[in-house]
Amino acid sequence: MDRPDIGNAIERLRGRAPLVHNITNYVVMNITANALLAAGASPAMVHAVEEAGEFAGIASALVINIGTLSPPWVEAMELAATAAVKKGVPWILDPVAAGATAYRTRTAAALTQLKPSVIRGNASEIMALAGEAGAAKGVDSMRGSDAARDAARRLAQTTSAIVAVTGAVDYITDGQRMVGIASGDVMLTRVTGTGCSATALIGAFLGAGLTPYDAAAAGLAMIGIAAELALPRASGPGSFAVALIDALAIIDDGIVATRLRLQ
Amino acid sequence: MDRPDIGNAIERLRGRAPLVHNITNYVVMNITANALLAAGASPAMVHAVEEAGEFAGIASALVINIGTLSPPWVEAMELAATAAVKKGVPWILDPVAAGATAYRTRTAAALTQLKPSVIRGNASEIMALAGEAGAAKGVDSMRGSDAARDAARRLAQTTSAIVAVTGAVDYITDGQRMVGIASGDVMLTRVTGTGCSATALIGAFLGAGLTPYDAAAAGLAMIGIAAELALPRASGPGSFAVALIDALAIIDDGIVATRLRLQ
Amino acid sequence: MDRPDIGNAIERLRGRAPLVHNITNYVVMNITANALLAAGASPAMVHAVEEAGEFAGIASALVINIGTLSPPWVEAMELAATAAVKKGVPWILDPVAAGATAYRTRTAAALTQLKPSVIRGNASEIMALAGEAGAAKGVDSMRGSDAARDAARRLAQTTSAIVAVTGAVDYITDGQRMVGIASGDVMLTRVTGTGCSATALIGAFLGAGLTPYDAAAAGLAMIGIAAELALPRASGPGSFAVALIDALAIIDDGIVATRLRLQ
Repeated sequence: MDRPDIGNAIERLRGRAPLVHNITNYVVMNITANALLAAGASPAMVHAVEEAGEFAGIASALVINIGTLSPPWVEAMELAATAAVKKGVPWILDPVAAGATAYRTRTAAALTQLKPSVIRGNASEIMALAGEAGAAKGVDSMRGSDAARDAARRLAQTTSAIVAVTGAVDYITDGQRMVGIASGDVMLTRVTGTGCSATALIGAFLGAGLTPYDAAAAGLAMIGIAAELALPRASGPGSFAVALIDALAIIDDGIVATRLRLQ
Repeated sequence: MDRPDIGNAIERLRGRAPLVHNITNYVVMNITANALLAAGASPAMVHAVEEAGEFAGIASALVINIGTLSPPWVEAMELAATAAVKKGVPWILDPVAAGATAYRTRTAAALTQLKPSVIRGNASEIMALAGEAGAAKGVDSMRGSDAARDAARRLAQTTSAIVAVTGAVDYITDGQRMVGIASGDVMLTRVTGTGCSATALIGAFLGAGLTPYDAAAAGLAMIGIAAELALPRASGPGSFAVALIDALAIIDDGIVATRLRLQ
Repeated sequence: MDRPDIGNAIERLRGRAPLVHNITNYVVMNITANALLAAGASPAMVHAVEEAGEFAGIASALVINIGTLSPPWVEAMELAATAAVKKGVPWILDPVAAGATAYRTRTAAALTQLKPSVIRGNASEIMALAGEAGAAKGVDSMRGSDAARDAARRLAQTTSAIVAVTGAVDYITDGQRMVGIASGDVMLTRVTGTGCSATALIGAFLGAGLTPYDAAAAGLAMIGIAAELALPRASGPGSFAVALIDALAIIDDGIVATRLRLQ
């Protein structure tokens, strides 16, 4: 295990309040914005080609999520990613449902060529991006995260991105090192947009200046522990989603240090 | 009254976790996805013409909702509906605000020609689709569901779809048989997307293999009873929406059998 | 201080249940619709050029918010605003993140030429629209509302719109008169869409027949006091957002009269 350095990550995030530019899907825009606000970042959703490149250049980090993609959005994603890299702004890719359709797999593959700092997906998505067929069904993963560890390593090696595959245990790798984060709860899979929000939180930590490896760990630790804090306050997935946002707003580095379960 | 057969419908839904493909409106995507997850289905929102047909073919059911329509979306709806019918995938139409504008009425009418298994609307929408003018004002119904029973029967006869008209009592008809579901609460009208979520739940039961008549009854029974379970836990429409999702996650066939009020 | 006349504003709103046509951003559509429903209005989101003009003509008020703009949406906004003015339907502009990109600033400026009854923004947005450069960073304001009072007055004079600039104190001006509303809480800034919902509520009061000056005051008073009612019921921004909707549903003119803090 290669322990990430996330000691004062949340304090840094709240101190900087990074502007996080999101080009994400319609389903999760609201919870993503609220998760980012609760964590201490300043979210913005901007997708028109007329301004996506300009905006990516002034943001502290860029989040691209292909959940509800269409050609004009893909054009803006490519433009924003290119502008971000040119300006030294880190960006993260969430390849939602890669593997489920040809268009989706092709788009995700094209975006991985544009130098994302981090790629975050579930097992099916990471396996599809690494070239393994047949792992996808809709947007929910058919496989546990354990099954995608080799695919994650290979994808990290071929793209030079940090790859995070989330599941019962989240794995983060740079192609050599790998760390597992066991914090979290299965209830996260019963609320739409928690994976997308995890991606956005990693984006926020990139915007706060953490390395991609540390940002991935900090983002996944933060949402995993927030889920554990939210669980006893919830009566089901509806109230869990509400309590998760509340928890993201109160969690701090001390809570993370005490509760984080690495493996 | 022709009693629908929904004895173990929820158990079947949870056992199969059907992939439900939604082309729905921006306002309700989040609550729709969360309602489907809570009920036990696997939702996906996919609207690009580049993949909507392919995706409809691998889904267990398709939900089309015209709430925030525009030409590229209508093209995808038609493409997805056609692909679904070709592959034997059942689909349901939600003709939001049909009757309110010419474009909306025309689009809804064109979609009804593409062999939906079920059409679910409020009284104004069903009356508009059946050719009765002047029933619509925006997206909220101007008439009680009772007033739309004849229109529902006629629409079912001309389209061969099961027609469900929701209101204080929900009516379901195949053009001959008709059953009324009295479960539910007026609070459902004070939260956006509950009608759209009802449509999506019917889609989930279609995906679980129920007949269209039984699926319509199961979906409307499930959300109606969930509303009754949520009500005592709510202080207003905000907390009601949260409690409704919680209730959808705990409701089971035994609760439905005990509480369902047919007429 | 020029005291607005909002004595029975909420009763009038609930009595008329005005149809409020929204062309707004993807992030906030759900909370905006729920805020309008809770307040007593009938919301509809309609953005296609094929129907936006027709729909604006039958609505009681129109709300235009440029949060996630793109050319087809801007075309519909201009068409709807023009149709609204022609039919005597009042409309309100929310120039989200004006000043942050050239496209956004240009679009907001063009819309201000189409005779909005009210313009509602944060300090950065109002200063940008009034021609002051450098005030914007993403969608969150860099400046307190006090700093934008002169800009608000000038913008009101050049556009003949009522201008509302929101912040710790909300200021409303017709270019001569100015009133400040101190009701509210900083927690409103930690939930996405509360500013957009404030704009929509002003739209609802326009639709209920209040003058633009009174409608702006009524909308901002209603959401500010609802925030104060919600605060003791909240454990963080997630539960605050839920309690805010609950509060909008129970607030009445008596509560406003008792609690409103003008300055």
